[in-house]
Amino acid sequence: MLSLLHLGGRCIALRGVQSLNRRYSSSEMAKRVAVVLAGCGVYDGSEIHEASAVLVHLSRGGASVQMFAPNIEQMHVVNHLKGEPSQESRNVLVESARLARGNIKDLTELSAENHDAVIFPGGFGAAKNLCTWAVQGKDCTVNDQVRAALQAFHSKGKPIGLCCISPVLAAKVFPGCEVTVGIEKDSKYPDTADTAAAISQLGCKHVSKSVAESHVDEKNKLVTTCAFMCDAPIHEIFDGIGSMVQGVLKLA
Amino acid sequence: MLSLLHLGGRCIALRGVQSLNRRYSSSEMAKRVAVVLAGCGVYDGSEIHEASAVLVHLSRGGASVQMFAPNIEQMHVVNHLKGEPSQESRNVLVESARLARGNIKDLTELSAENHDAVIFPGGFGAAKNLCTWAVQGKDCTVNDQVRAALQAFHSKGKPIGLCCISPVLAAKVFPGCEVTVGIEKDSKYPDTADTAAAISQLGCKHVSKSVAESHVDEKNKLVTTCAFMCDAPIHEIFDGIGSMVQGVLKLA
Repeated sequence: MLSLLHLGGRCIALRGVQSLNRRYSSSEMAKRVAVVLAGCGVYDGSEIHEASAVLVHLSRGGASVQMFAPNIEQMHVVNHLKGEPSQESRNVLVESARLARGNIKDLTELSAENHDAVIFPGGFGAAKNLCTWAVQGKDCTVNDQVRAALQAFHSKGKPIGLCCISPVLAAKVFPGCEVTVGIEKDSKYPDTADTAAAISQLGCKHVSKSVAESHVDEKNKLVTTCAFMCDAPIHEIFDGIGSMVQGVLKLA
Repeated sequence: MLSLLHLGGRCIALRGVQSLNRRYSSSEMAKRVAVVLAGCGVYDGSEIHEASAVLVHLSRGGASVQMFAPNIEQMHVVNHLKGEPSQESRNVLVESARLARGNIKDLTELSAENHDAVIFPGGFGAAKNLCTWAVQGKDCTVNDQVRAALQAFHSKGKPIGLCCISPVLAAKVFPGCEVTVGIEKDSKYPDTADTAAAISQLGCKHVSKSVAESHVDEKNKLVTTCAFMCDAPIHEIFDGIGSMVQGVLKLA
């Protein structure tokens, strides 16, 4: 194992690559942000580019980051080349570790006491592994650990950032809250209109925002952006996530 | 299958999320850039955040992007949580499709005729799946399709961008070329010194550059940056990859 991973000590040993967030914990003034992942890949896990953008913007904002994921089996595994489920099974925490470069903890270890904010990237994994929205829509159930984490940060008045489809987690757990999943009436984005309607049916307010914008629910300290819910160039999605992250850090 | 993926048409159907690069092909003036992936995850595939940064910067630069990966088995699968190999087997093209949101082609379809430049993100996958550097260092062999692609772009005078450990591909295929994998004499980065030494032994010139910089070999049209070869905050790595991508687009 050592020879495979450390490559005989030749050039790219683990010590050189495993420390995605080591640097960010050095300052006592840094905002401590938890990021909750749901696997690794848009169709069955966290949307990779959303998660990466969250980390880049948190790093630029000087935040200290710790990633978490539930130690559960994925709802299913999707072959992203064929666009169809495969017969494999994969674990959400193990696959999320790919995004975290190994530095990730079981979601059971997340305590709102130890963090100033929490962020949920999107992707189908948020709707398949963190709740059952993908199958049941507004009648979904939310994973117990995810629900507990959301309620803990909310009750302490600590901000929660969500993007893409993840805002439905807030809509399900915090009736009456305000979120965005894009521009509701824009016919280019039919998924957005359907999701916005379901959010309204849950008694929440959907606020239309463009891909580069985020919406802040000041009362509930929720910051949301539509990300890949909109079919936009990836750099605009990156910028919208930057707006969300900056909003979270401002409230933290 | 449709019900699982399209979720009853409820909110987040494939049509809304599968088109990472659709927008970039609309302009006839756009630079057409091929990106070659090696899996999905730093320890056995492409480094996720490097690949994502490449796509964000190419998008901001107005480039048209097509991703490719070899249709081969990974050297092995690493459990990124435990940091050790698992007993699974995974296909490089199938796993790379996670980064490409499904929009990726077999590397056999890559023709330098149809692209203005090619970029290789890093990660262990570049040293395990695209060549055997991880096991054999400077005595490695390069995957035939990867070698052919590099030689085709090089012979047509089209630029090649590489980051992290991927510059060793150029060092192996283009003797005498200049690349960077970081700051050679900086004792914080022992892997960089070892890799730089191996590059020199191949008859190439290693040029020390900081994480936010890139090096341009004007003669060979190679643009390289060290990325995660340096233990730097992720936003500095993002910026260094931006410098590399901009260098590639300038030469294309």
